[in-house]
Amino acid sequence: MSDTKIILEEKDMPRQWYNLAADLPSPLLPPLGPDGKPVTPDMLAPVFPMNLIEQEVSTQRWIDIPEEILEILALWRPSPLYRAKRLEKALGTPARIYYKNEGVSPAGSHKPNTAVPQAWYNKQFGIQRLTTETGAGQWGSALAFACSLIGLKCKVFMVRISFDQKPFRKLMMNTWGAQCVSSPSSETQAGRAIQAKMPDTPGSLGIAISEAIEAAVTDATGKTRYSLGSVLNHVLLHQTIIGLEAKKQLAKAGEKKVDVIIGCAGGGSNFAGLAFPFVCDKIHGQDISIIPVEPEGCPKMTRGPFCYDHGDVAQMTPLLAMHSLGHEFVPPPIHAGGLRYHGMAPLVSQAIVEGLLTPRAYPQLKCYDAAVLWARTEGFISAPETAHAIACTIDEANKAKEEGKEKVILFNWSGHGLMDLGGYDAFFRGKLTNFALPQADLEASLERIKHLPKPEIHRSGKW
Amino acid sequence: MSDTKIILEEKDMPRQWYNLAADLPSPLLPPLGPDGKPVTPDMLAPVFPMNLIEQEVSTQRWIDIPEEILEILALWRPSPLYRAKRLEKALGTPARIYYKNEGVSPAGSHKPNTAVPQAWYNKQFGIQRLTTETGAGQWGSALAFACSLIGLKCKVFMVRISFDQKPFRKLMMNTWGAQCVSSPSSETQAGRAIQAKMPDTPGSLGIAISEAIEAAVTDATGKTRYSLGSVLNHVLLHQTIIGLEAKKQLAKAGEKKVDVIIGCAGGGSNFAGLAFPFVCDKIHGQDISIIPVEPEGCPKMTRGPFCYDHGDVAQMTPLLAMHSLGHEFVPPPIHAGGLRYHGMAPLVSQAIVEGLLTPRAYPQLKCYDAAVLWARTEGFISAPETAHAIACTIDEANKAKEEGKEKVILFNWSGHGLMDLGGYDAFFRGKLTNFALPQADLEASLERIKHLPKPEIHRSGKW
Repeated sequence: MSDTKIILEEKDMPRQWYNLAADLPSPLLPPLGPDGKPVTPDMLAPVFPMNLIEQEVSTQRWIDIPEEILEILALWRPSPLYRAKRLEKALGTPARIYYKNEGVSPAGSHKPNTAVPQAWYNKQFGIQRLTTETGAGQWGSALAFACSLIGLKCKVFMVRISFDQKPFRKLMMNTWGAQCVSSPSSETQAGRAIQAKMPDTPGSLGIAISEAIEAAVTDATGKTRYSLGSVLNHVLLHQTIIGLEAKKQLAKAGEKKVDVIIGCAGGGSNFAGLAFPFVCDKIHGQDISIIPVEPEGCPKMTRGPFCYDHGDVAQMTPLLAMHSLGHEFVPPPIHAGGLRYHGMAPLVSQAIVEGLLTPRAYPQLKCYDAAVLWARTEGFISAPETAHAIACTIDEANKAKEEGKEKVILFNWSGHGLMDLGGYDAFFRGKLTNFALPQADLEASLERIKHLPKPEIHRSGKW
Repeated sequence: MSDTKIILEEKDMPRQWYNLAADLPSPLLPPLGPDGKPVTPDMLAPVFPMNLIEQEVSTQRWIDIPEEILEILALWRPSPLYRAKRLEKALGTPARIYYKNEGVSPAGSHKPNTAVPQAWYNKQFGIQRLTTETGAGQWGSALAFACSLIGLKCKVFMVRISFDQKPFRKLMMNTWGAQCVSSPSSETQAGRAIQAKMPDTPGSLGIAISEAIEAAVTDATGKTRYSLGSVLNHVLLHQTIIGLEAKKQLAKAGEKKVDVIIGCAGGGSNFAGLAFPFVCDKIHGQDISIIPVEPEGCPKMTRGPFCYDHGDVAQMTPLLAMHSLGHEFVPPPIHAGGLRYHGMAPLVSQAIVEGLLTPRAYPQLKCYDAAVLWARTEGFISAPETAHAIACTIDEANKAKEEGKEKVILFNWSGHGLMDLGGYDAFFRGKLTNFALPQADLEASLERIKHLPKPEIHRSGKW
């Protein structure tokens, strides 16, 4: 019997996170304040605890994972590395396809990998309560889970349309003791203003972020902070445990070299979590193709410029150096809600500019085709975001077949789709389209950020 | 860092199932036909393939698991054994609580442990299509998954009220390529008759079983058979891989002895799967308390007689020697749909009669209290059925505290509750009750089976 999955004991769990900022050829560009000058750590102090701000700006290569965090991660980590033998057979490919199964966490995705450390560091800093926003609910439920086990209160502002359409996600948060309200809410000034102006709005991530930040910084006790589930450096840092585990597991499987690394990318955290330890290898000379996959409906990496832009619609966040479609860009209603964000994590964006990554965009229907083939060969039902990584993996496996090469492909199976079956339903009923992006919408959104400062970066030109 | 979960490599997966029929002190009572005489294997041939019928009547202690079945089970097996350290701490108990996590399967429960072998043996026998019934959908989705990977067509008759209330379960089946129809349907004579007589019926498991059996036996090609997800001997046999793995894992954890084994029991398969290898130890002299847990709303083990009764309302099945509340018994609408069955597996029933098991009944609200405490300490959200095992585990852990004893408790965490959050919602909104069982309903149902033959069994009197 050959090995379907390669497992590690808890004692083999990585003890440190890997920080790509230490190895990027060009120094990481700092966020800018409204005056165009770099933001200082103390300017972020009302929003985040100082221990996380230190991680955010750190350029130290390895950062220790506290024991108490490892104890909670051990509920589902090390996550299994699978060999997708049935898919390989169905495709008739000579490629060996491996995937990390991050769907085994209590919340069903990779999100708890950072939710747990974020809750823990806040608790250490004396914080008693966290606020956050969530779109489809993956992040909100992950933070609710983490706060429950660590002993923090948790308040989630959930985009109204998802709040109404996906009541089960809210119930997951309630089960873990968190409060979840529909955004725009009447609990914040930002929410009330939007309610007055647009009573029928379906809400947006931009509005929900504004509400969550306001609820944190205006709390009179000073014991509330805000938490973000992607984009930021410390979030990507926490996710690198995925790639570090994968390296040990590939070695255990007898693989000496990886040829292709693939992950879907919304804000960038699950992709970075798997890929960054391999980006390090690429920087040091290894020949690896590393592909972040985005939806054609929200193509910031393949069609958005590298620029300074805000993380939210209301421009409450600092300016981040990133690939962006403009903070007012509204993507079409694709089912992969986690990929419907206008910007890409600065660390990922800068690695793209350096030529270390080769982003690719996929249309929605191709991703659902891939997810259905996956379910019927490998058995697990994928989140619509994850389906993007599968579609790209299938393309790469077919390419290996054409070339007659025994390539090793590794991708991140970032989460299960059990809470997202509505998209499959629409697909089976033939009601789903690719939701093509109107060129005029994209151009109008980019026009609105033309005046913002431009990042200065000197590409090493090596890749 | 201490071990949160005890894992096994694929090579350590059990290679044989354990058959309790070989060790029961009194011989297993055969099912009876309409004439009151034992049913012969060939009478079952239109319904099941002969290789599974052979397993059904086998008294061989160990039965080899074919390699191809192990290859598919390896997608999630060996399942992890967890130490519930956070729950222990919350309870302040000296007991060490262990649980098998069967929620890691693609369908989210223990059901695929038998769905895969059943599909495989049917395929070996030349069958091309399986029919089955499902209530809340756990079994239907497990069989859809298994048929998808093994290459069989699958048709599921789903009880109408669940079909309407839980559309996601149907979508899981569709994703795996199975057809799922609302029962009563217009596709069978049984379904059409019920539709004509009771157009507004919410459906029942009894009706759906009749439809699924009819659809199998009337198929003109002769290549269709019926599949059942619990109750029968071969189903329980396939589940024993759970307990066999648990034994290896407890040994790896350094535990020399188990004091208490707990599982929830609807038809009996997840309970038996964990417990039977330990029942064998008890038969051979070990002192173990083994507790199947049922809901107070459907108390066949604690209040139903051991008798010959039918497995379905329409009396299409043979008479089985089992604890039963009568085949016309309609349990109150508790959320643990998988425990709403009038009878208990003959093997489990006979072990109860022998005194090897000590069944216990729990009210619904106590189970939800337990499930919420579980989610907030151990992190995973439990199926409402599984919540019954947790409630009993907490009672046993508290008892160990009172007695000041370092007991080892092992229970089966049979599945996650991500598709069943409606029950949690009702619980949090204070809308849930215990749905007490009216004594008159129970008595009327038992009265209706008084005329059926009585099993003759001579208890060894050892336990």
